[in-house]
Amino acid sequence: MTRIVNRREFNYSLALSVGALSFFRFPLQTRFLVNGQRIMDHINALAEFGKNPQGGVSRVAYSDADKQGREYVMGLMKAARLDVTIDAAGNLIGRRAGQDNKLKPLLIGSHIDTVPEGGNYDGVVGSMGAIEVAQTLAENGVNLQHPLEVVIFQNEEGGLIGSRAMDGELTEKELDLVSRSGKTIREGIKFIGGDPARLSEVKRKRGDIAAYLELHIEQGNTLDTEKIKIGVVEGIVGINWWDVTIEGFANHAGTTAMNNRQDALLAAAKFIEAVNRIVTSVPGRQVGTVGRINALPGAPNVIPGKVVLSLELRDLDAGKIKMLYEKIYAEAQQIAAASKTKFDFKEINVNIPAPTDRRIRELIMDAARDLGLSTKLMPSGAGHDAQDMARLGPVGMIFVPSVGGISHSPREFSHPADIANGANVLLHTVLKLEMVQTLLKLNR
Amino acid sequence: MTRIVNRREFNYSLALSVGALSFFRFPLQTRFLVNGQRIMDHINALAEFGKNPQGGVSRVAYSDADKQGREYVMGLMKAARLDVTIDAAGNLIGRRAGQDNKLKPLLIGSHIDTVPEGGNYDGVVGSMGAIEVAQTLAENGVNLQHPLEVVIFQNEEGGLIGSRAMDGELTEKELDLVSRSGKTIREGIKFIGGDPARLSEVKRKRGDIAAYLELHIEQGNTLDTEKIKIGVVEGIVGINWWDVTIEGFANHAGTTAMNNRQDALLAAAKFIEAVNRIVTSVPGRQVGTVGRINALPGAPNVIPGKVVLSLELRDLDAGKIKMLYEKIYAEAQQIAAASKTKFDFKEINVNIPAPTDRRIRELIMDAARDLGLSTKLMPSGAGHDAQDMARLGPVGMIFVPSVGGISHSPREFSHPADIANGANVLLHTVLKLEMVQTLLKLNR
Repeated sequence: MTRIVNRREFNYSLALSVGALSFFRFPLQTRFLVNGQRIMDHINALAEFGKNPQGGVSRVAYSDADKQGREYVMGLMKAARLDVTIDAAGNLIGRRAGQDNKLKPLLIGSHIDTVPEGGNYDGVVGSMGAIEVAQTLAENGVNLQHPLEVVIFQNEEGGLIGSRAMDGELTEKELDLVSRSGKTIREGIKFIGGDPARLSEVKRKRGDIAAYLELHIEQGNTLDTEKIKIGVVEGIVGINWWDVTIEGFANHAGTTAMNNRQDALLAAAKFIEAVNRIVTSVPGRQVGTVGRINALPGAPNVIPGKVVLSLELRDLDAGKIKMLYEKIYAEAQQIAAASKTKFDFKEINVNIPAPTDRRIRELIMDAARDLGLSTKLMPSGAGHDAQDMARLGPVGMIFVPSVGGISHSPREFSHPADIANGANVLLHTVLKLEMVQTLLKLNR
Repeated sequence: MTRIVNRREFNYSLALSVGALSFFRFPLQTRFLVNGQRIMDHINALAEFGKNPQGGVSRVAYSDADKQGREYVMGLMKAARLDVTIDAAGNLIGRRAGQDNKLKPLLIGSHIDTVPEGGNYDGVVGSMGAIEVAQTLAENGVNLQHPLEVVIFQNEEGGLIGSRAMDGELTEKELDLVSRSGKTIREGIKFIGGDPARLSEVKRKRGDIAAYLELHIEQGNTLDTEKIKIGVVEGIVGINWWDVTIEGFANHAGTTAMNNRQDALLAAAKFIEAVNRIVTSVPGRQVGTVGRINALPGAPNVIPGKVVLSLELRDLDAGKIKMLYEKIYAEAQQIAAASKTKFDFKEINVNIPAPTDRRIRELIMDAARDLGLSTKLMPSGAGHDAQDMARLGPVGMIFVPSVGGISHSPREFSHPADIANGANVLLHTVLKLEMVQTLLKLNR
């Protein structure tokens, strides 16, 4: 963990303590507030692209709805006086020049693609919020020292494709994978105006950004339940995913006595129960899920001989994930011995935890306090483009409440007032960050 | 149960105790033995039809392999001096006239269709054994009083179609169901030489048969483990099949805290464990199986919101099945309450238990004893055409050992000596039954 945190700390040295910054509280803060109604108008207008008859939206990346939604968003960016380009990866970038264009850009943004039958808020709140921040700055004639880039990353839901292109993690091989749209990622990038042959031009390196800030709905129910207005994200959890294969012996369900079975599904049932028990046996906010299961041959009258299931563990602490996995693995061996089955674990994917920058967290808390909004430090259980941006510079994330914690569903909802609050916190965090950076510059 | 037993007892009254029959032991029994090598030659020749490269056979009903296998079998029947017809349902019937053709026929037989990637013994042993019995009788010039019918029922594996046509249970609606061959059952019946428009002609009523005897591999490992040569089937178990739907709430696996989940798969896991625990909590040979499971939406990063799984219970005693089901149902309600999910049970299919005839069981035991073969009374956990024939008259079933209890698999195997033993027991049970029947006739 320590190693990872260090890799992602500010790439500039900040001698001043954040507490001292209160002297430099931006004098115009009370005059600067976003237009909450305009954000909602934009969110509602965007919800027309890929709208489902039964509610919510299906705007999967590289679909016609996605392309049309992006065109609408480019119009909003232009109206916010941003210079709009589509980078070679297909990310939309709206740039606002800084007073000192030699400074690294300050990035804010999110995504507008959705899961199939998703909601109207995931990604959209942060995207519309970032554009609104740019528009508020423009309307108030505030010129930042740093260039500002509003980035709408492409295909977040299908594997953080746009942000992974930007940090150089997207591989040539992945480009040929078929996305939910039916197009390969390569075809999809072309379809939305990118150029997969020029991806190397998109790649930024560590230190190329001053910071990245992302506003997002929580997608869990912590803020909603605890009536807290702003979640200050400590980090994006690590996600480890294994496929677990359980080999028993398929046999006739009528003729095979109960004590003579090697029932892979019964072993799987004990395993699923063990995962839940082990994950909840230690304090903390870690989660463990078996979301997919396939039992073969899959007939009511045949004892399952083989089960393949997914095991996913998430936590901010990679060490805790490892500890939980080791306990689960050990218990699986006991289940295997007792049920005459065999367990095989195959690691499919690992996202290491991505902590946010400690000082940016404090700026977000300051901004919220200035606006009279309650805050809570919390992990992000979901993955976000911010985790890739954390490889390029310091990042911060701002959460607003999701009613009932529902997400990836047409029933996803956040109150307009909460969305406006989040956008205002984003705006004031940008201003505070600008001041820190400016101070640094003055100190140079 | 009493009611069911009564319905299926002999339809003639037998005043003599079976014990008294030992006086009438067939005098030629030691001269009458089947030709075990010939049975194996026929089994091996039939295994060529639908042979799989990886071993075993795929001879699903109504496939080309099935049709070709049936043609080969008709040739064997003719060689055994049987008059061969295909009935309107597509069953192969090889008839040997009796001395008194006004007597009801004595039926022996089984099936030659297989499951996909099945073995070479299930159904085939009883079919080749029955033809061998007819041939042995013919070669020894033994003329029974009763007509003898060797019946090769069509499509046993796909739902006892041929035997259910014979007892009038096959519905018009079922004819349009698509079988594993890809053909509807109606098309399949035509394909193998039957006439689905004339099914009513096939239907027999209670009392139309003197008896039905079926030789079969055990498909379990009881005989193999206990080194017993002949299983005397007490009855064919009842089979109750439910589909169980568990409704939880699908949510994000990263953002939904462990204590805030309504995980349908975790509830399913507890249910599967409960089924096993309840079924094994009482003495007896009952079995309970969850063989099929489907969890939705089925992604590693989504908590399953819905699970559909199959529950199958089998026992010779319908009352015990009911008792187990009630315990399972009650525990499901507890799991539902604890996990904030809902369980819904839908009955899909019920086969009531079909006891064999007590006196035929005793004749089979006598025959085995005469041949020096050990016996064990046991249920048939699998369904068989005999369960339908039990609606028409008294039935008996003879099991021979399955090595390792493996069935519905290319690894299915029974030793040639055991197969010959089974066919000899079938032969001598026919002879004993003939004597009982003859005595009855003499007594009339």
